[in-house]
Amino acid sequence: MKGYSKILVAVELISKTDNEILKHAEIMAKEFKADVTLVHAVENIGSYSAYGIGVGFEIEKILMENADKEMKELGEKLNIPEGKQVVIIGPAKYVILEEAEKMNADLIVVGSHSKHGLRTILGSTADGVLHGAKCDVLAVRLKS
Amino acid sequence: MKGYSKILVAVELISKTDNEILKHAEIMAKEFKADVTLVHAVENIGSYSAYGIGVGFEIEKILMENADKEMKELGEKLNIPEGKQVVIIGPAKYVILEEAEKMNADLIVVGSHSKHGLRTILGSTADGVLHGAKCDVLAVRLKS
Repeated sequence: MKGYSKILVAVELISKTDNEILKHAEIMAKEFKADVTLVHAVENIGSYSAYGIGVGFEIEKILMENADKEMKELGEKLNIPEGKQVVIIGPAKYVILEEAEKMNADLIVVGSHSKHGLRTILGSTADGVLHGAKCDVLAVRLKS
Repeated sequence: MKGYSKILVAVELISKTDNEILKHAEIMAKEFKADVTLVHAVENIGSYSAYGIGVGFEIEKILMENADKEMKELGEKLNIPEGKQVVIIGPAKYVILEEAEKMNADLIVVGSHSKHGLRTILGSTADGVLHGAKCDVLAVRLKS
């Protein structure tokens, strides 16, 4: 029995939640000697520019640079090479699902937040990933 | 790092799908030396009797007896003692979540079907479990 070999871990680049997610991803990766890729989606806010706010693309650029930096630090800490650190602009659900298909992942690890307010109505990233995934999904229940 | 210690596995008592679910549950249980409980929910159709059909409870009784028998066989095959084979009448989502809380599970393993027809609208058991679980959920993607 060989378990999982290619694990995609969706990180939020917020250390409090990532620690929870990564703890479980690390256990799985270690137990199954699996290949791990980290993915993070940067919220797409560039389109706000179209409505006259005009700073959307600037903010997006700053968010992207910050995310790249934090992802690099996380990768170094976890000993995951740069080629396996993915930062993409777009809605989290689609970014994660696309990356999973691209790398032919057999497991996606994603944090699952408690449902409060809007999340109850809109559903969370974990819900969306579970709905669309072609592989197994481990949803790690987060405290926040 | 100790991984999971109490795993609740939701089985459908249909060998084709259970084989997939159990393959992953077995891997996890073995790797983490975890305690495994099997749970199966028998559809609650007794209430149809109230609408004059009158055979609901009879059918439910037969379904329950069949489920008990199949669960026993599965338990024997997997070497899981009778005290850890749970068959309960009720909606799958609630049966699974209640049992998880009762045993203080740290992981629920549940099959995740492709969404066709009604499932797309109503959502699946896996969706419901993910929504309500207080612990981690491993959704095993099934072919059917």
